[in-house]
Amino acid sequence: MENRIDVAIIAGSRSDLVLVGETIKVLDEFKLFYSVNIASAHRTAEHLKQCINRAESSCVKVFIAVAGMSAALPGVVASETVLPVIGVPVECKHLAGFDALLSISQMPKGVPVATVAVGKAGAANAAILAVQIIAIDNYDLKAKLKSYKIGLAELIVKENLELQKDGFKKYITGLKK
Amino acid sequence: MENRIDVAIIAGSRSDLVLVGETIKVLDEFKLFYSVNIASAHRTAEHLKQCINRAESSCVKVFIAVAGMSAALPGVVASETVLPVIGVPVECKHLAGFDALLSISQMPKGVPVATVAVGKAGAANAAILAVQIIAIDNYDLKAKLKSYKIGLAELIVKENLELQKDGFKKYITGLKK
Amino acid sequence: MENRIDVAIIAGSRSDLVLVGETIKVLDEFKLFYSVNIASAHRTAEHLKQCINRAESSCVKVFIAVAGMSAALPGVVASETVLPVIGVPVECKHLAGFDALLSISQMPKGVPVATVAVGKAGAANAAILAVQIIAIDNYDLKAKLKSYKIGLAELIVKENLELQKDGFKKYITGLKK
Amino acid sequence: MENRIDVAIIAGSRSDLVLVGETIKVLDEFKLFYSVNIASAHRTAEHLKQCINRAESSCVKVFIAVAGMSAALPGVVASETVLPVIGVPVECKHLAGFDALLSISQMPKGVPVATVAVGKAGAANAAILAVQIIAIDNYDLKAKLKSYKIGLAELIVKENLELQKDGFKKYITGLKK
Amino acid sequence: MENRIDVAIIAGSRSDLVLVGETIKVLDEFKLFYSVNIASAHRTAEHLKQCINRAESSCVKVFIAVAGMSAALPGVVASETVLPVIGVPVECKHLAGFDALLSISQMPKGVPVATVAVGKAGAANAAILAVQIIAIDNYDLKAKLKSYKIGLAELIVKENLELQKDGFKKYITGLKK
Amino acid sequence: MENRIDVAIIAGSRSDLVLVGETIKVLDEFKLFYSVNIASAHRTAEHLKQCINRAESSCVKVFIAVAGMSAALPGVVASETVLPVIGVPVECKHLAGFDALLSISQMPKGVPVATVAVGKAGAANAAILAVQIIAIDNYDLKAKLKSYKIGLAELIVKENLELQKDGFKKYITGLKK
Amino acid sequence: MENRIDVAIIAGSRSDLVLVGETIKVLDEFKLFYSVNIASAHRTAEHLKQCINRAESSCVKVFIAVAGMSAALPGVVASETVLPVIGVPVECKHLAGFDALLSISQMPKGVPVATVAVGKAGAANAAILAVQIIAIDNYDLKAKLKSYKIGLAELIVKENLELQKDGFKKYITGLKK
Amino acid sequence: MENRIDVAIIAGSRSDLVLVGETIKVLDEFKLFYSVNIASAHRTAEHLKQCINRAESSCVKVFIAVAGMSAALPGVVASETVLPVIGVPVECKHLAGFDALLSISQMPKGVPVATVAVGKAGAANAAILAVQIIAIDNYDLKAKLKSYKIGLAELIVKENLELQKDGFKKYITGLKK
Repeated sequence: MENRIDVAIIAGSRSDLVLVGETIKVLDEFKLFYSVNIASAHRTAEHLKQCINRAESSCVKVFIAVAGMSAALPGVVASETVLPVIGVPVECKHLAGFDALLSISQMPKGVPVATVAVGKAGAANAAILAVQIIAIDNYDLKAKLKSYKIGLAELIVKENLELQKDGFKKYITGLKK
Repeated sequence: MENRIDVAIIAGSRSDLVLVGETIKVLDEFKLFYSVNIASAHRTAEHLKQCINRAESSCVKVFIAVAGMSAALPGVVASETVLPVIGVPVECKHLAGFDALLSISQMPKGVPVATVAVGKAGAANAAILAVQIIAIDNYDLKAKLKSYKIGLAELIVKENLELQKDGFKKYITGLKK
Repeated sequence: MENRIDVAIIAGSRSDLVLVGETIKVLDEFKLFYSVNIASAHRTAEHLKQCINRAESSCVKVFIAVAGMSAALPGVVASETVLPVIGVPVECKHLAGFDALLSISQMPKGVPVATVAVGKAGAANAAILAVQIIAIDNYDLKAKLKSYKIGLAELIVKENLELQKDGFKKYITGLKK
Repeated sequence: MENRIDVAIIAGSRSDLVLVGETIKVLDEFKLFYSVNIASAHRTAEHLKQCINRAESSCVKVFIAVAGMSAALPGVVASETVLPVIGVPVECKHLAGFDALLSISQMPKGVPVATVAVGKAGAANAAILAVQIIAIDNYDLKAKLKSYKIGLAELIVKENLELQKDGFKKYITGLKK
Repeated sequence: MENRIDVAIIAGSRSDLVLVGETIKVLDEFKLFYSVNIASAHRTAEHLKQCINRAESSCVKVFIAVAGMSAALPGVVASETVLPVIGVPVECKHLAGFDALLSISQMPKGVPVATVAVGKAGAANAAILAVQIIAIDNYDLKAKLKSYKIGLAELIVKENLELQKDGFKKYITGLKK
Repeated sequence: MENRIDVAIIAGSRSDLVLVGETIKVLDEFKLFYSVNIASAHRTAEHLKQCINRAESSCVKVFIAVAGMSAALPGVVASETVLPVIGVPVECKHLAGFDALLSISQMPKGVPVATVAVGKAGAANAAILAVQIIAIDNYDLKAKLKSYKIGLAELIVKENLELQKDGFKKYITGLKK
Repeated sequence: MENRIDVAIIAGSRSDLVLVGETIKVLDEFKLFYSVNIASAHRTAEHLKQCINRAESSCVKVFIAVAGMSAALPGVVASETVLPVIGVPVECKHLAGFDALLSISQMPKGVPVATVAVGKAGAANAAILAVQIIAIDNYDLKAKLKSYKIGLAELIVKENLELQKDGFKKYITGLKK
Repeated sequence: MENRIDVAIIAGSRSDLVLVGETIKVLDEFKLFYSVNIASAHRTAEHLKQCINRAESSCVKVFIAVAGMSAALPGVVASETVLPVIGVPVECKHLAGFDALLSISQMPKGVPVATVAVGKAGAANAAILAVQIIAIDNYDLKAKLKSYKIGLAELIVKENLELQKDGFKKYITGLKK
């Protein structure tokens, strides 16, 4: 296990790990240290508390909790720590993802969860938000974020240039291959 | 405090007590013993656990948890006990009550919450469901439930008789007074 | 047909039996006796009543009703018995499952249905809720529930241990196979 | 009680009678015979069946069922008769009326309910739909419907004329008085 | 083309004809005469009016209009006739079918559309509702409806008998084949 | 009546005129000529067609249609003209305005309606969108739009300046008066 | 790059180009000049502004912005120009497309976006709406729109004729091939 | 104006300042420095950018953006900074707040917004989340957060004690006064 971690990721169940893959890709890009644990708010309250405590004793700075359906995980993590908790809603086949989104975002006064988008976009954004939080007093990381942001922009600008060069019909044929 | 209780009611916040009043009216009618506590899943995890433990040591049979918004309370109670937990969703001004309804009903496999309707009807029904559960092996209580059911029916039949006698226009004028 | 049953499962149509499979797996695990019937609230009112009566004369303790769309089945069962009725909403292609969830949960005062999650998770949870209800005064069954709960937790803890041992990338590659 | 009735209106509860007032106004305008009963699908199954039978023995042609929340009433009436059943969804404070609308409209194959709009517009339209159904082979009634339709149009045309004559500002000031 | 028709079915577009197949199967079973036309409220207002007029001059008794998305078709048909109009909402990939359901059901006062369920169940039910309407003063047809209803019930009872005979596991294996 | 009009506003019913007031305020500000008519897609098809024709013979450039519930009006106007049609959804007590929004926006291929926000903001924006459309080849009007836009910005900047000067507490106390 | 353009299409990301294909097909049919760019409101604010400026200096008349999820693109374009902006909501796997539809349509007072339907129908309709806007003072284009409209109608009338000739069963079998 | 600020709050319009009051109360409690500005993403793009720049040159650590309807503000702020941005959805009369919630939470990959609950609870939680973020490397602030958390818990425990002492009926009577 890692000694020092920046971000503690907790997935509500094994099936949520696929989304966690999106989170990790971004954290790796920013060279942050992280841990990943599976822990359920409803099924492993004790184990979840241990995960939280272990993370806190590893000087974690941000929690990311990934869960679907009732999705109590992010809120329960938030109830156990004063560190910021980011919640990623997972769509679980029914109700179009509204269940997880509402369960995670509608936290009562006093115990916020920083909710991001449902699914893959949200899983990646949770990582970026974590980096932003950690980067507040870290000029190197802030600089990397700026580069990342520029990179995002450059990618789109480059795609757009290719689109202009190829023309729509050729470009979209290329896309579909 | 009561020594032996049948039903332990937990409200997520003081403002949820208004709905609890509906629950209590029904439990009183059936002469069940109950406790009422305010405890928040997100703000008083430890105190909540104590409420649950104290209820269990008072031989409680059913939990009723009343909460709005993210409404993690019923699920967290369910994670701490093997007794049946009934969840009452509260509408909290925004999102038309969908947040609490989805948060309470969409529990993951292994930790059910028996969800009832949003608001007053649900709060009363939570009590009736609790009575039904306790009455399974209790002939007296079952008989009372049957009377209650007959009472509900008779009330409607009586209202209907008056409606027939008065005619619609007179009856509805009376209603509006 | 079984002589004594603990749980009477009623599916609103043949296609709902797939979900019932999830319910049965759990009931089998807890060695409860159950019956399964197909009966529609809207199409076989008389036959449904017979199913309910037959179940009651077999000393059934809990009903589980599984239905989609308008999903009146759980409510109609609840109107015919004073035993607790658990309703499992089925998603039927359109409206993302909101139709069945709202139809089952929003019961009027006096006739509760214990609603669980839409789909497979709900179908399994209906069984667990039934076991919880029956276990209230049954120490053996309560002990089994506690073991079941511990089992759920241990499974997640074990998955988490493997995840820690393998590391994320190896573990998730294993998952996808 | 009326001897011969054309339309049997059934309200799920006393509070639904306000909406029934809208239905009756239209039926009176068309001089149809009707009965109004309060009967609950979930609380007075037997009484409801009697209402249906009594209506059928009075040669009723169409049923109108008005209900909120789970709103099983229209569907249960439809299960007991082969006459057309019109369902009026009532909004009951929570979930913006989606519960009643979905419960009434999403009937399974074989047992249709003719669903109209939520609330007052629906309650009036239920009456018009009933008149339309009864008028199919009744030239007098059909003529009245055509007049009614012309009347609706003329009213709007007249309002529009006044609007043109007064100009917007004067007209709307008049409206607000 | 048929000379005399009982039911005029209008599909909003060619792709809606698949659903119309469900409607026709039921109408064939009841030996009703029907016409099927493709006509769009928004794209072929004139042609739609002709379809309606032609149907009316063929003594049609009921209209069935099948449409998705904004689904103005049923309402526009209703605005042109005093005959009952049944609307079948079609789910068109996005918004889970809520668009068509709300567009069809929420008609303003004066112009009702008898809305049935979204999709296949609704398409079949539109036919049954049409039969019910036509059967009001037709004893033969009413008798057929009663047989149909008994048939529906018997099918379920028969399925249930097989389920009882086979036992759940064998029966469901058979189902899946 | 005006001889030449730029914008023809059609309200689905008298009660929608309140919203039309918001539209008119903006059109007056831009000194556009407009007509306002009440016409219902479902109740006055013929009269509506006349309104559209009359507007077209007055050289109207844009239609604005304001309607609630099923809100077929904007779509029906769009089916009768090749001019751009802007649709304003009205919230009519139930379903939180989703009915009108979906009915207006989800138009089928070939017959677009330019949908704006539900309620007052949408009613004002319909006017601005109309001005934008008419201003495309009109430099004066375009200049006014730019001023309007600057005015909007300046108002906010001015409010912000006052907020900075007063400080939050004083400013908000002023607001509440 | 084109020198003079009528319509500037901006896609929020490369994956939105598939929908843009629907828009282009219609614009090509009407022989309008257009540009297509990829630009993100959130990721390439500067590049987006350049796209808008470049389009404006090419005398663009209408913007079409295609975006999913939070879908700020159309609104941000609208904030930068006084030309009409049409927004096409894209469904991005979760929440059934409600996110993009609401984000695009619910613009605040002063900055309208002309919202069309979610997905392919909307993408095509955005083009038609653009043509309608440009055609206001262009008799040739208006004539083409009328032909297009007649073409749409004739296609449906022709499909209907084939349906009448073939009969339903033969026609639908042909459809499925 | 403050020289050094920790949190920059931006309200989308003057009417959103009421909610900002909730945010400020919490920030005052934690003695953080903050600025409050009114700036609209859609109406004052330039002024908004200045607010963001000014905040950044005052060493701001976290942004809080409060907006309703399309609610592009938080996302646009996020596009201009690499600091964490917290978004507070405001319910604006229609659509039950779903518009703002979805617009703020469903951000595309690369530009996260930390979304909190709709309305007052969210406005307060935005402040707490900001404090949590700033407290990561600040032991004093972390200690205050722990006290705050303990305070929240103690308040509920105290309310609960009073409830136990008074009994339900007396306590709730006191509440209602």
